[in-house]
Amino acid sequence: MKIIPYHRRANYYETDQMSIVHHTNYIRYFEEARIDFMRQIGCDCRKLEELGAIIPVVDAYARYHKSLHFDEEFQVDIQLEKFNGARMEFSYQIRFPQTGELAVTGHTSHCFVDEHQKPFSVKHRFPEIYRRMKSALSPRPATA
Amino acid sequence: MKIIPYHRRANYYETDQMSIVHHTNYIRYFEEARIDFMRQIGCDCRKLEELGAIIPVVDAYARYHKSLHFDEEFQVDIQLEKFNGARMEFSYQIRFPQTGELAVTGHTSHCFVDEHQKPFSVKHRFPEIYRRMKSALSPRPATA
Amino acid sequence: MKIIPYHRRANYYETDQMSIVHHTNYIRYFEEARIDFMRQIGCDCRKLEELGAIIPVVDAYARYHKSLHFDEEFQVDIQLEKFNGARMEFSYQIRFPQTGELAVTGHTSHCFVDEHQKPFSVKHRFPEIYRRMKSALSPRPATA
Amino acid sequence: MKIIPYHRRANYYETDQMSIVHHTNYIRYFEEARIDFMRQIGCDCRKLEELGAIIPVVDAYARYHKSLHFDEEFQVDIQLEKFNGARMEFSYQIRFPQTGELAVTGHTSHCFVDEHQKPFSVKHRFPEIYRRMKSALSPRPATA
Repeated sequence: MKIIPYHRRANYYETDQMSIVHHTNYIRYFEEARIDFMRQIGCDCRKLEELGAIIPVVDAYARYHKSLHFDEEFQVDIQLEKFNGARMEFSYQIRFPQTGELAVTGHTSHCFVDEHQKPFSVKHRFPEIYRRMKSALSPRPATA
Repeated sequence: MKIIPYHRRANYYETDQMSIVHHTNYIRYFEEARIDFMRQIGCDCRKLEELGAIIPVVDAYARYHKSLHFDEEFQVDIQLEKFNGARMEFSYQIRFPQTGELAVTGHTSHCFVDEHQKPFSVKHRFPEIYRRMKSALSPRPATA
Repeated sequence: MKIIPYHRRANYYETDQMSIVHHTNYIRYFEEARIDFMRQIGCDCRKLEELGAIIPVVDAYARYHKSLHFDEEFQVDIQLEKFNGARMEFSYQIRFPQTGELAVTGHTSHCFVDEHQKPFSVKHRFPEIYRRMKSALSPRPATA
Repeated sequence: MKIIPYHRRANYYETDQMSIVHHTNYIRYFEEARIDFMRQIGCDCRKLEELGAIIPVVDAYARYHKSLHFDEEFQVDIQLEKFNGARMEFSYQIRFPQTGELAVTGHTSHCFVDEHQKPFSVKHRFPEIYRRMKSALSPRPATA
């Protein structure tokens, strides 16, 4: 399945006094792209939470190559690098769409917990979600 | 009871590319000062929420007089202008502590709802909170 | 000229522990819609700032009718209520697109200053911008 | 020189609908602690920027151990792990002050650029800052 890259413009309130997007906001862009990715493969994060499936962030990394400015368009390419039904890992490349140049790269890893913060097996509890996520795994060797 | 003004410094990530604190962040400062005010009069907002008492914002207004810059200290003076057990209203003055000069003024109004979004009477459900808030009402004629 | 309403979904990081969009974020949505409005009428805010035309917020008001949740779509209808070349005022209605129901309404007012924080006349300095903004004025009587 | 850990409470607007502090906000806490650290060793980041010394973030990493909730107090322990006059690296531990338990750990690395985005040597341009930062280097072997 071909994932359509997430894209939008940088907002004014996302800049800081360096006149660039504040470094923490790119990790928010990662989140936007991740939720969009999940929707594209048929996994609605909002519905999942309503069913008691929470997907907290275990760790997050971002490397800043070139800054985004107010109103600049960007796209986020995202890959599901690892998924075993208990954990998953995504990698991200935020790019300037015109040139393909990299703005920020990074990765996040996640686990699955229920409403009582207890880990659960996606395979047993949501077999259809499990199948979809397995199919969405990046064919590239996981390197992140 | 004398309320101690809330104060801290403006954070880097709160600035925008005008090199001043973004206008929406002052309304977040209002919230910080309001929660601090509630604590000072003996009403712990965190405990209240755990007991199912939610205090949503009904409206908010801010007027911008003079901008705050990164790392500048500010203080927030806050008054409880109205409180009748179903609704309440606060007014705020964000100031430069050295000169007393105004940075931002504003007000917010609030209601009280339970965990099912239903309004409730503070007087009946939390009589001690009611008494404390009544005592904390600003003696000044409510003008906002 | 017909303005296309601004729309997108609410982000996860825009929610708070009430499980609704935090009240200050709607005022950020106002800003997004305002910049989009300006672009639609041919006034690029980024270019204007590069030319030394800064448009700070003088005051902002929001009234909260019904909360937005994570991932919910919303649209922002925006009107330029007043513009005289020195000041301007916008009104906003954030709605649920399916039903047209109101989520948040509000208004902001603005002035025009140069890079030294000095007010300037849009009419004299940017006659084409002046003309476009005058044409974009809402035909409705200004009520906000 | 003994650095006093940075500490404050988590704000309401920093929570998300998981009822915990959103993961990106901890990286903002890193920034707050870093600026406080710099002030403690006599390097005022605001003054440095006014002199044209910008310190952008090159990369950032956070690992989430245990979540902070609204109004919870936290402290940030910070160490300057590396500094060579062109680059520097900090490590951070966000803790629950009562128990010392870890909430979040991480690190950031930074470079020094002038107002034209050109790297410069701190040793040549700001010898006193260079001396202070060298003295503030963590005695522990850099592990991050």
